[in-house]
Amino acid sequence: MTQTLAIGPYNSADRAALVDAFDATVLDGPTGLADLDADVRAGITAVAYMGHHAFGAAQMDLLPGLKLVANYGVGYDAIDVAAADARGIKVTNTPDVLNDDVADLAVAMWLMQGRQMRAAEAHVRSGDWAKNGPVPLNRKLSDGTAGIMGMGRIGRDIADRLAAFKMDIHYHARSEKDTPGWTYHADPVELAKAVDFMFVALVGGPATEKYVSADVIAALGPKGVIVNISRGSVIDEEALLDALESGAIAGAGLDVFVGEPQVNPRFLTLENVVLQPHQGSGTVQTRAAMAQLQRDNVAAQLKGAALLTPVN
Amino acid sequence: MTQTLAIGPYNSADRAALVDAFDATVLDGPTGLADLDADVRAGITAVAYMGHHAFGAAQMDLLPGLKLVANYGVGYDAIDVAAADARGIKVTNTPDVLNDDVADLAVAMWLMQGRQMRAAEAHVRSGDWAKNGPVPLNRKLSDGTAGIMGMGRIGRDIADRLAAFKMDIHYHARSEKDTPGWTYHADPVELAKAVDFMFVALVGGPATEKYVSADVIAALGPKGVIVNISRGSVIDEEALLDALESGAIAGAGLDVFVGEPQVNPRFLTLENVVLQPHQGSGTVQTRAAMAQLQRDNVAAQLKGAALLTPVN
Repeated sequence: MTQTLAIGPYNSADRAALVDAFDATVLDGPTGLADLDADVRAGITAVAYMGHHAFGAAQMDLLPGLKLVANYGVGYDAIDVAAADARGIKVTNTPDVLNDDVADLAVAMWLMQGRQMRAAEAHVRSGDWAKNGPVPLNRKLSDGTAGIMGMGRIGRDIADRLAAFKMDIHYHARSEKDTPGWTYHADPVELAKAVDFMFVALVGGPATEKYVSADVIAALGPKGVIVNISRGSVIDEEALLDALESGAIAGAGLDVFVGEPQVNPRFLTLENVVLQPHQGSGTVQTRAAMAQLQRDNVAAQLKGAALLTPVN
Repeated sequence: MTQTLAIGPYNSADRAALVDAFDATVLDGPTGLADLDADVRAGITAVAYMGHHAFGAAQMDLLPGLKLVANYGVGYDAIDVAAADARGIKVTNTPDVLNDDVADLAVAMWLMQGRQMRAAEAHVRSGDWAKNGPVPLNRKLSDGTAGIMGMGRIGRDIADRLAAFKMDIHYHARSEKDTPGWTYHADPVELAKAVDFMFVALVGGPATEKYVSADVIAALGPKGVIVNISRGSVIDEEALLDALESGAIAGAGLDVFVGEPQVNPRFLTLENVVLQPHQGSGTVQTRAAMAQLQRDNVAAQLKGAALLTPVN
């Protein structure tokens, strides 16, 4: 009987790879767990997890032999790590392999918002350019001030890109980092006051809920733009919507939302935002690398080797 | 009587600045030249030029005292420099001040095309994300191979940005340049063979017409994407359209078109292209800097000082 249970909306290639490698039993989501035979559940030592549904004490207790939850994705806020710790269960994630894609999308949303490229593209495609002349002038982006909220590996990859756009880089993190002379702010509000463009690259989860608060948003000011590629939960989304609607800030580029894939309908009528469907890591190459790293963690656990990317 | 004639579709601020500084006479375009009084024409020593209408021997001969054509823009292909030389007329342009904006837009079109951000945004705004799930996976951009066609100042600014995306940089120019180890190709077809993403940053004009030829486009291949921020004329646009329609290349990001603002309607139905209305330098800050540099050249001419940015 298999020791591996794959849970989540895997694509057919990744699902097949999990079955090939581990003879995995596959569930579309954690709600199917209780319906598995108790014999099957008792034999499971590793879960290959994918998705944003909560996986906590209740799910873990249905798998009494569980030793590993191998998450697909760098953000593992769906998994209750404290509950895992209490049961001697290890958790792994898939860091680093997705940094480039996520940083690319962050910079892309910044550029697309600042240069109003969606409206400009519609201007060409509708024939308005020929009929009515040029689009309004936009704002210059290069040579401005950018703030990174959360200087982890992805934050650093965003900052390295922005530095090539001649941006003056500021950041906030729990502690000062080794950087090429970038400006550290211990207080997130002070970061917001110092910059026009704020890139949010925080870890998700309860500790960072609404970390980008109404006060941070207000401090950014009317020239401010927020780019978020981390989790919807890290921003006070109601305060963000109020600020976007009133002009208290200039705009936003958002790949993540509270309650996604449902998106607050107030976003949908705004012209000063770029809205993307959580596609930060969504490339063929990177998703394959994430799936491989997840399987490598499962394989390490099954043969008693050291986990590659443990988080607890 | 004024010595300065401003020709082109200036915005109200730039027009007012030209009148304030030089008591300039203003025409919307060169066709109005012949209707000016001969006395006025005879007094003109400097033209502040803006736009893409041709300004050549016929226009120059209507201004017998002309000493300077100060172009607004880095590309001066509308101005017949040989005709100017023959008449002892100097030409200036507005280089450098727009490099950042144009390079920003080049990188932006690359990212927006590769990550299919227009379709992804429509997926969010239509509600399809919640109803039908994620968008298809796209291609990874960072860590790929990029080719710069024309390594002038703007090409270099594009390459410097792409280097921060961990791209392997290749380039073609008339001669090898001092670069951080980038790969020079003397032959444009060889450049196209070596890379997936080609950024066209050539100077416009007759010498570069269709320089990105059908052969260059074919050599780029089915994973190839062309980004053009220079002039529509530098690409064989019919060959490009054929390649985009057939899948001979993967896509394009275009800010410039043959015959713009009219755009070949074959572009308008393509989903694998990003289309922008020649907004490369179109920011408030940069257009103001371009207008200032143009006026500084006119002022230098009028007081007999050295021109700031002569091209002949």
